[in-house]
Amino acid sequence: METPQDRTDDLRANEAHPSIGDWATCAADPQYRAAVLDLLGALAYGELSAFERLAEDAKLAPTLEDKAALAGMAAAEFHHYRQLHDRLDEVGADPTEAMQPFAEPLDSFHRMTAPADWPEGLVKAYVGDSIASDFYREVAVRLDDDTRDLVLRVMADTGHAEFAVEKVREAIAADPRIGGRLALWGRRLMGEALSQAQRVVAERDALSNLLIGGVEVRGFDLVEVGKMFNRITEAHTRRMAALGLAS
Amino acid sequence: METPQDRTDDLRANEAHPSIGDWATCAADPQYRAAVLDLLGALAYGELSAFERLAEDAKLAPTLEDKAALAGMAAAEFHHYRQLHDRLDEVGADPTEAMQPFAEPLDSFHRMTAPADWPEGLVKAYVGDSIASDFYREVAVRLDDDTRDLVLRVMADTGHAEFAVEKVREAIAADPRIGGRLALWGRRLMGEALSQAQRVVAERDALSNLLIGGVEVRGFDLVEVGKMFNRITEAHTRRMAALGLAS
Repeated sequence: METPQDRTDDLRANEAHPSIGDWATCAADPQYRAAVLDLLGALAYGELSAFERLAEDAKLAPTLEDKAALAGMAAAEFHHYRQLHDRLDEVGADPTEAMQPFAEPLDSFHRMTAPADWPEGLVKAYVGDSIASDFYREVAVRLDDDTRDLVLRVMADTGHAEFAVEKVREAIAADPRIGGRLALWGRRLMGEALSQAQRVVAERDALSNLLIGGVEVRGFDLVEVGKMFNRITEAHTRRMAALGLAS
Repeated sequence: METPQDRTDDLRANEAHPSIGDWATCAADPQYRAAVLDLLGALAYGELSAFERLAEDAKLAPTLEDKAALAGMAAAEFHHYRQLHDRLDEVGADPTEAMQPFAEPLDSFHRMTAPADWPEGLVKAYVGDSIASDFYREVAVRLDDDTRDLVLRVMADTGHAEFAVEKVREAIAADPRIGGRLALWGRRLMGEALSQAQRVVAERDALSNLLIGGVEVRGFDLVEVGKMFNRITEAHTRRMAALGLAS
């Protein structure tokens, strides 16, 4: 599990990354503009679908307090969605059009990973939140100043899943046998996330180029995509281990 | 449908109501304290269950924008819940315990009024939001200064259902036959709401006394309860007529 110190280091690394200019300058390049609209659309739909699923999974909660904790995460995701949506509007894009290409992969992910019970719901909330943070951080360094500010602002409003960590630990302490099942579940979540991400990479060239090299790089490099996914997978593995789940 | 002017008038009327003192003074009376904890518990569970149902009903939305509009209402209800929950905490009450007596009536209401399609979902969102506002306004004048400030603050964050009004008008304009069905639906929503409210009145003496007469009145008066419900029903009828639905 990452510490606040890790996060500060990551943010410092982002700040050290040389600026590629502001939105107005970078968006003069139609390929860059298209890539960022893709990115904002993907993030916006990701947040909206996370809202939906967390609100749904809150039904599995054994107590009112637990339900409210997951509902609180859902409400936070909605506010993230709203910020991304408004940015799309602001730069003259149609938010619905920008989100549409990512609806099917994200809906598939959630359909394939509907939690069977409350502990699975907690692990999914935590894993989903963490992977999203990792991805926001990876992508932030490749963006123009204005888009990066937005992405970091949305990402900074995290920590809503921290309650899940404690609850999962309690559940495993109370019944160690569920640890094995939840470890398997954690692997499955990461596997489905990677599989849908690969679909998106295969279908969205401009976005993929942005992800692997930023505005400077034009060559599509599968090795770089793989490296980014590996970094996110490694972070996931460390978190699962810290949670007491061998992944 | 009420105008901003109506709302200002109502708030002015509330302000003209003589103060009964602050929370510390009034809560020295254990019956008053119990009644306000009941009220905050009922409102908190009402907001949490509204969050749940709106998030669920958002699935019926025909477009992403429509889904996001209902999800936005759900997120707003969650923030209302959070304010009420935190107030219960602040005055030393257990929020879950305070909410528990109202879980069954509110869950029953939502179970009996699950919308069959998107127009029914819109009418329910609008009617629910409006009845809640009416109730907050009715009850505010009977409260100590601190609790009234909280209730008016939560109530002031409304208007999230206004998009529903326009959408329902469009749906009726496009297919006038659904007007009859939605009018019936509006009556059913009000009927179920009244029926569950009567259950609560019958079971929660302290709360009922507060609702009908404020801290000064101790005699339980069914006529006064009836009058309050009538005022809310009349406001509902006017709103349905303004929406083009004979109620």
